[in-house]
Amino acid sequence: MADKIDGLKLEQRHGKARVRVGRVWKNEDGRHFFVEWNVSISLLSDCIPAYVLDDNSNIVATDTIKNTVYVKAKECSEQLSVEDFAIGLGKHFTSFYQPVTAAIIKIVEKPWERVHIDGLPHEHGFKLGSEKHVTEVVVEKSGSLQVTSGIEGLAVLKTTKSGFEGFIRDKYTMLPETRERIVATEVTASWRYPFESISSIPVKPLYFAERYLDVKKVLVDTFFGPPKDGVYSPSVQSTLYQMAKAVLGRFHDISSIQLKMPNLHFLPVNLSNKESPAIVKFKDDVYLPTDEPHGSIEASVSRIWSKM
Amino acid sequence: MADKIDGLKLEQRHGKARVRVGRVWKNEDGRHFFVEWNVSISLLSDCIPAYVLDDNSNIVATDTIKNTVYVKAKECSEQLSVEDFAIGLGKHFTSFYQPVTAAIIKIVEKPWERVHIDGLPHEHGFKLGSEKHVTEVVVEKSGSLQVTSGIEGLAVLKTTKSGFEGFIRDKYTMLPETRERIVATEVTASWRYPFESISSIPVKPLYFAERYLDVKKVLVDTFFGPPKDGVYSPSVQSTLYQMAKAVLGRFHDISSIQLKMPNLHFLPVNLSNKESPAIVKFKDDVYLPTDEPHGSIEASVSRIWSKM
Amino acid sequence: MADKIDGLKLEQRHGKARVRVGRVWKNEDGRHFFVEWNVSISLLSDCIPAYVLDDNSNIVATDTIKNTVYVKAKECSEQLSVEDFAIGLGKHFTSFYQPVTAAIIKIVEKPWERVHIDGLPHEHGFKLGSEKHVTEVVVEKSGSLQVTSGIEGLAVLKTTKSGFEGFIRDKYTMLPETRERIVATEVTASWRYPFESISSIPVKPLYFAERYLDVKKVLVDTFFGPPKDGVYSPSVQSTLYQMAKAVLGRFHDISSIQLKMPNLHFLPVNLSNKESPAIVKFKDDVYLPTDEPHGSIEASVSRIWSKM
Amino acid sequence: MADKIDGLKLEQRHGKARVRVGRVWKNEDGRHFFVEWNVSISLLSDCIPAYVLDDNSNIVATDTIKNTVYVKAKECSEQLSVEDFAIGLGKHFTSFYQPVTAAIIKIVEKPWERVHIDGLPHEHGFKLGSEKHVTEVVVEKSGSLQVTSGIEGLAVLKTTKSGFEGFIRDKYTMLPETRERIVATEVTASWRYPFESISSIPVKPLYFAERYLDVKKVLVDTFFGPPKDGVYSPSVQSTLYQMAKAVLGRFHDISSIQLKMPNLHFLPVNLSNKESPAIVKFKDDVYLPTDEPHGSIEASVSRIWSKM
Repeated sequence: MADKIDGLKLEQRHGKARVRVGRVWKNEDGRHFFVEWNVSISLLSDCIPAYVLDDNSNIVATDTIKNTVYVKAKECSEQLSVEDFAIGLGKHFTSFYQPVTAAIIKIVEKPWERVHIDGLPHEHGFKLGSEKHVTEVVVEKSGSLQVTSGIEGLAVLKTTKSGFEGFIRDKYTMLPETRERIVATEVTASWRYPFESISSIPVKPLYFAERYLDVKKVLVDTFFGPPKDGVYSPSVQSTLYQMAKAVLGRFHDISSIQLKMPNLHFLPVNLSNKESPAIVKFKDDVYLPTDEPHGSIEASVSRIWSKM
Repeated sequence: MADKIDGLKLEQRHGKARVRVGRVWKNEDGRHFFVEWNVSISLLSDCIPAYVLDDNSNIVATDTIKNTVYVKAKECSEQLSVEDFAIGLGKHFTSFYQPVTAAIIKIVEKPWERVHIDGLPHEHGFKLGSEKHVTEVVVEKSGSLQVTSGIEGLAVLKTTKSGFEGFIRDKYTMLPETRERIVATEVTASWRYPFESISSIPVKPLYFAERYLDVKKVLVDTFFGPPKDGVYSPSVQSTLYQMAKAVLGRFHDISSIQLKMPNLHFLPVNLSNKESPAIVKFKDDVYLPTDEPHGSIEASVSRIWSKM
Repeated sequence: MADKIDGLKLEQRHGKARVRVGRVWKNEDGRHFFVEWNVSISLLSDCIPAYVLDDNSNIVATDTIKNTVYVKAKECSEQLSVEDFAIGLGKHFTSFYQPVTAAIIKIVEKPWERVHIDGLPHEHGFKLGSEKHVTEVVVEKSGSLQVTSGIEGLAVLKTTKSGFEGFIRDKYTMLPETRERIVATEVTASWRYPFESISSIPVKPLYFAERYLDVKKVLVDTFFGPPKDGVYSPSVQSTLYQMAKAVLGRFHDISSIQLKMPNLHFLPVNLSNKESPAIVKFKDDVYLPTDEPHGSIEASVSRIWSKM
Repeated sequence: MADKIDGLKLEQRHGKARVRVGRVWKNEDGRHFFVEWNVSISLLSDCIPAYVLDDNSNIVATDTIKNTVYVKAKECSEQLSVEDFAIGLGKHFTSFYQPVTAAIIKIVEKPWERVHIDGLPHEHGFKLGSEKHVTEVVVEKSGSLQVTSGIEGLAVLKTTKSGFEGFIRDKYTMLPETRERIVATEVTASWRYPFESISSIPVKPLYFAERYLDVKKVLVDTFFGPPKDGVYSPSVQSTLYQMAKAVLGRFHDISSIQLKMPNLHFLPVNLSNKESPAIVKFKDDVYLPTDEPHGSIEASVSRIWSKM
């Protein structure tokens, strides 16, 4: 939304962030289903007079935006994916309000997982897991659509089969080359679906929820390699590319994927003083884990026809 | 450590906090074992002159304390529990340094879990889980010992079989009674072992690591009840007590247990305005999850002969 | 609160944490006064039947506890210190509820500071500062009282006049001695007032709020020394003791003080590789600031007659 | 950086994040100057073979990137602004390394402020303030340049002279209209300078550091209005626009400014139950402060000739 006013250009959006909602669905057989979502909504809308003329008549109050999240959660009579909920919200705001030209809906799903007791799934018990399913959906008044899904906080580590060699050496270089190190990262992934309108989305229930689990499995499997012997990683860059390529190769309904894989270094520990040249001498055994500083490696890989 | 000086009483301790160490052990068959620990050490010692006379001659530098963590990690030729590592550190500081009268060692173990690929355990791949294993060990120069183990961040939720009735009603009371609500909490547990010296600890390798998993299972199972139908909770207090009692009833090598179970409220959502008395009308379906404010319920339960 | 039941000893407390309240007072001359408090309340009470017999009849609901915070904030017709508010809450809970034997009230005051525009104090404008004023008050049914006040997050740093020499050297020691380093810490202070009942507290309005500022000034002044040339610190321990002693020497209504002063290291930067022995050679100019690990130095100093 | 490979498009960057550096400068008169910076660097470079062919020969190791920060900090013989330091780094990476086509440098300056003791500035003492000065600089191999500066964490609140009326009312609307409320926000500001090459930057030392303080003052002054009576805010949107317009009106060397001003609600407290319709009845005095959910209002205002 860009408007010219007072000889200036004004771009703006408003909305409500961190709207939390929990939703329970109860099957007749006693099984409960449960999600907890943290919803952030931004509206692009024709409301320049609020900024410039103190006229709020085209403003959807952020309190109203929040209320709507609860109304729409109430209306979901059956369990649905976080993406479908976001799409529904986006459709509502762009169709119900004349001034709203587009809605951007971001949702983080809290990783509540069904508990198992002695191997049996509990009817109504849930325990918090680790990495999170997120989505960002953009809906325009025209009906055009973008759906991005992602994973946050997928922390993985392997204790061997990683190295880094042959990089640029210059007067600022201190890092030795190695074929043996720990590699650890916290993967942030986001991938784009090719659907350009609501009508083009598969009608299969929980389609997006299943695809999320599929993608996560491919990312994890590719990072680690086979259970026996694993796979050698010559750089975080190379592993990242293999992961992205595997996802695009496997899922034709994903048009592009972005991966951020910070290199969370595990430094070799060598300690010495004047008396003792080796208080601790590193033999691929004792490491100093660090978060700060960390390498930052990120890339997006897309099919060439993709618009991402 | 209390000393009188200048007509004042001085109690002090010093040490190093947030010392991070990763340790890998490699089996001949290709399997790797891995732990990441965040160690904090406090020494009680005779070093009043450092405070009062600017004389540091009885001070163990905190840098030296840090170095020692790595030395001791190096010396561990086989995988060991976090408790055993803490005990070893405490023993070292109290025996190696004449001025040190006691050492308090706290360690948080990062929840790296072995990855499974298509059902098979990976040789050297690990993924971060959720709740954390922690320990606090106090070793005195005399050899006397206290070992406390615990869990941090065990977040659990059940969508039914919880209520709260019959509490005090007065002019400040607004909460309705209910037999149907969500109950959610993030359990912090810590339990004391009865061992009063290093020699009284079972020599079984990984004894403490296994007991940690045992206790966690009993806490979770008691919180949720059977997979079919669960168990009714008339209050967080009651559930907490049942959990503590179950642990003490099951494990005779635990002398006391403390549980902190904040009541993380999931508020019923009811929305109305003048035109519409029920924009959203709650039917055990739509909730507002909150962290702030939260109830705080905590208790410790101990065998009567316990010293905790 | 310890009770024996089922052959076990039970100690328990419950309450409400993170209750946030903002309070505005408006002077007739147009000036506003404002505080924002984050209140946590724990009640010690005779409510064992809730744990053991599922009988909640002696339980003050945590929702009621929360409501009371707002009722009591409403009743404050004039600005008051955070300590006085905490004392009032403690008095209420222990006198209004028969089962409640003691109340522990902790409050963190958000550091909103009056804004100045071109040197003039703004009537109703506030900006967030840095360190926080906290208090913990314990009120017993008998009327006996403990008042502790404190500072959290007072981060201070000096670029010189600090050293560390003459400490224990052994085979684990790598730290060189120095008379020139940066010293940085984030002071957590808490001090005890000698008042043992509400009636013994000075009736001066804002007495505690003023004393908080007084103590903070003495701590800061002692840490830094004179504006010209400062004061040499031979160890964090020595500086901590001088700060504590200065507070007790100056304020006779403070019976003890505890200081926690983590040593947040600024490491000298020296970089070298095979070709260049000095990519960067340290000359008290370039430092690597770290939080992890950090030294931990803490002590409490009390008048000998104190009960702290 | 977009490249086509394997029938896919690859865009990538790598670098080092959270590189912390402290720098001291000492005047002959005994005064010290000090900054602490947290630097994150991303390089856009021709290094596709690292991703695709496991060939690292065009990769600048992130460890080398980190080392360079310290080398460049060492080379600064006089105090300089965070923007000038960022520009110097960007220039280095794009000119020293053939494969590097652009560098993105983000720096957060920790708000260490010189301490005053009894009104006098301390020679070498510093205390942590609140909001932070940040910058993001993009340098391309061609020498073209973008300099953005900003403020993070500027938390401001006024207890009156704020309202919100005349907004859209529909069946989801519950918010009453008001002319009297607290308004609180945490401003994130970032503004773009018009300089398109290093040579076009004013040679005045500390030019950017002074401009940062200037902009902050205009933002704060406009938000609050005069010390006496302040200024009425009919919406966060309106106030945001006035703040942006004031900055652009005052500083002709700023081409655009973006402001994010979440509306951190202070909810009126009204409590009632069946017996008492007004346990607490709100009279612009007692508020419930909240962070979650919050309104999100953001806009950028630019001169029409601007390229931002």
